Amino acid sequence: MPLITLTTDFGTKDHFVGAVKGAIYSSISDARIVDISHGISPFNTTETAYILRNAYKNFPEGTIHIVGVDSELNEDNKHIALLLNGHYFVCPDNGLISMIATEINPTRIVEINIHDRLESSFSVLDVFVQVAAHIARGGTLEVIGKTMTTFKKSFELQAQIPAEQNKIIGNVIYIDNYGNVISNITEKLFKEIGKGRTYIVRASRYSFTKINQKYSDIVDFTLPAHQRQSDGNKLAIFNSAGFLEIAIYKSNLTTVGGASSLLGLDYRDRITIEFQ
Amino acid sequence: MPLITLTTDFGTKDHFVGAVKGAIYSSISDARIVDISHGISPFNTTETAYILRNAYKNFPEGTIHIVGVDSELNEDNKHIALLLNGHYFVCPDNGLISMIATEINPTRIVEINIHDRLESSFSVLDVFVQVAAHIARGGTLEVIGKTMTTFKKSFELQAQIPAEQNKIIGNVIYIDNYGNVISNITEKLFKEIGKGRTYIVRASRYSFTKINQKYSDIVDFTLPAHQRQSDGNKLAIFNSAGFLEIAIYKSNLTTVGGASSLLGLDYRDRITIEFQ
Amino acid sequence: MPLITLTTDFGTKDHFVGAVKGAIYSSISDARIVDISHGISPFNTTETAYILRNAYKNFPEGTIHIVGVDSELNEDNKHIALLLNGHYFVCPDNGLISMIATEINPTRIVEINIHDRLESSFSVLDVFVQVAAHIARGGTLEVIGKTMTTFKKSFELQAQIPAEQNKIIGNVIYIDNYGNVISNITEKLFKEIGKGRTYIVRASRYSFTKINQKYSDIVDFTLPAHQRQSDGNKLAIFNSAGFLEIAIYKSNLTTVGGASSLLGLDYRDRITIEFQ
Repeated sequence: MPLITLTTDFGTKDHFVGAVKGAIYSSISDARIVDISHGISPFNTTETAYILRNAYKNFPEGTIHIVGVDSELNEDNKHIALLLNGHYFVCPDNGLISMIATEINPTRIVEINIHDRLESSFSVLDVFVQVAAHIARGGTLEVIGKTMTTFKKSFELQAQIPAEQNKIIGNVIYIDNYGNVISNITEKLFKEIGKGRTYIVRASRYSFTKINQKYSDIVDFTLPAHQRQSDGNKLAIFNSAGFLEIAIYKSNLTTVGGASSLLGLDYRDRITIEFQ
Repeated sequence: MPLITLTTDFGTKDHFVGAVKGAIYSSISDARIVDISHGISPFNTTETAYILRNAYKNFPEGTIHIVGVDSELNEDNKHIALLLNGHYFVCPDNGLISMIATEINPTRIVEINIHDRLESSFSVLDVFVQVAAHIARGGTLEVIGKTMTTFKKSFELQAQIPAEQNKIIGNVIYIDNYGNVISNITEKLFKEIGKGRTYIVRASRYSFTKINQKYSDIVDFTLPAHQRQSDGNKLAIFNSAGFLEIAIYKSNLTTVGGASSLLGLDYRDRITIEFQ
Repeated sequence: MPLITLTTDFGTKDHFVGAVKGAIYSSISDARIVDISHGISPFNTTETAYILRNAYKNFPEGTIHIVGVDSELNEDNKHIALLLNGHYFVCPDNGLISMIATEINPTRIVEINIHDRLESSFSVLDVFVQVAAHIARGGTLEVIGKTMTTFKKSFELQAQIPAEQNKIIGNVIYIDNYGNVISNITEKLFKEIGKGRTYIVRASRYSFTKINQKYSDIVDFTLPAHQRQSDGNKLAIFNSAGFLEIAIYKSNLTTVGGASSLLGLDYRDRITIEFQ
């Protein structure tokens, strides 16, 4: 039973996702299909990378991940298939893979050349499903494309380190369902550069001297429940994906607001950690 | 083929739902996974209860229901697993179960103690999936936790009856996809207290002397179609879940509005039935 | 393993979709269930037709398509089941089928008469799932209903041709996830009427003398990437479903806007092609 995931900017109202699933079942009747996300902001490769790198590792090896974000074939945007960390990816060559494969290199990459309908504006349906079906049947990547030795690079998920190594300069790369604001500073980088030094996290006009591991770390459970007043407080946390996040405890983005709206932190804004 | 449902406030854009599904398939390769809802308002236990109690009974017995709403483990929020009405639930002990189990008591409840990573901020991925996999493999609840005899109580879904039994005092507990407004007054309670007496339903400054069984009960089909003008009319109905609902016939919340916006009825507002 | 799709206006927050899936698994334990859309605008039959006609053909023959849009049973709105182009549909008789079956007639149609609970306000759960289960078990349509020879007609998806055949007069029938605006003018009709003549597409105060096959056809790849400035440009295209669409290249409806908001084109607005 092949496992195929979908990560797209199609939304869930239109016929796009249904059409793709129908085509997958028509080719691979015993497929199991999982939606990772169809809510990516249109054409946003950085969001795609953040979501996919945090989701894909939880699937069994051999899973085939189809990506439908900015995937129309043209001179600048080739279609590729690759094996990375035991997982297959079928996607455009638009920088996405470089943001997922930051620590592990792909084992093999091919430029897909089975296209019999180059004029398609719906590549996922007309090309990627066929490629996934080929892989699901145990086919090799070499049959469907020409081996490549490199792929496009994008550095949006990478924080900067000045030569003095006295700080990490990051940016907001994602705002999640709770309005929490996620930076491109990983816990791994924080440990490598910080080496146990004390630090200050700066985001907009706020600063934090502690980075938590759990949201409820900021609650003082020694107080009676009605005196705690922790809901609505801001905190810094290394989230479950390992990235530095600025959060509001128990925020609701659609009513009182979340970290993004309450602290005025938007996509691409700077977040830094200064070491002493 | 174990059946596992997910009810969360994760939204569907982020990687959370995909990561959980990947982990489930990694543990239970023949699982069937069903999304009940990922659109719960953040941390809203009452909404969770309303949605889950109306959905779960339709699944076959033995289904495992994972709940990811306000589920971070802390001193005040334990993780529990239980068997209720032939269904398994893996969820936080935050009052939710008391709103689902209003008529049937759980057969067995345990406080989960298999945690090997207490500092997780993503309990559904790190704990609940393991518990579900254990149950799916036929494991007993006793192996994964300590038997409990009670659980937290919440009364948000319960309408009030004054000593005179001359009315039922309810509140808005949910606003649905159509903008229809749902109270915590059940048809069962209405029959028990009303005993066939005539009644007036009061909601905001509106009143209703009839509670319908179908939305189109308010349409006069003896008139020619173009003279009916029933679209946009308000009505009271016992909805398919058995709760008193104030609705606008064929409303569209995002254009002209629904009962919530047009009649000014919001979450927690009072709705009463007075008997004569 | 029967394949069952769902197309509804239920949204994905409420319990409706979960309840229906639970009931399907209770009746047909080896079903594969696919969501085509739950985001249809409430009671909008034209949107339903556009989405379903573009999705259903990609599924294998024998797939059962359940439609839950405006499906409450009443004197004017019968429940039907039918076989069309090798696919089963279980839906209300509200004009929907006439917009899907524009080129192929249904092989067989029945008016469902197995209702044992006419007072239901949740027909999909209480009736359509039973009908789908009957079909999935290999049952004939005749057992669950009375053969019909006709069905309700709706012409919303049909563009108009004046006697002179010098133009095609269409309307906006759908606005997609990217804000792109889709008309009821098909490429097939364009070829039949146009017969290779030159043409002008008119939409709001804009005109187009070319209809593209791919979105990136408007990009001049001979220029260096930073000089292209094609993002945000408007274009006309026959989309992957074969309908004339007015699009903004790489638009984002929720930030800068899409064709609908930027060009002022709304549902039902006129779009024409004039031939010379």
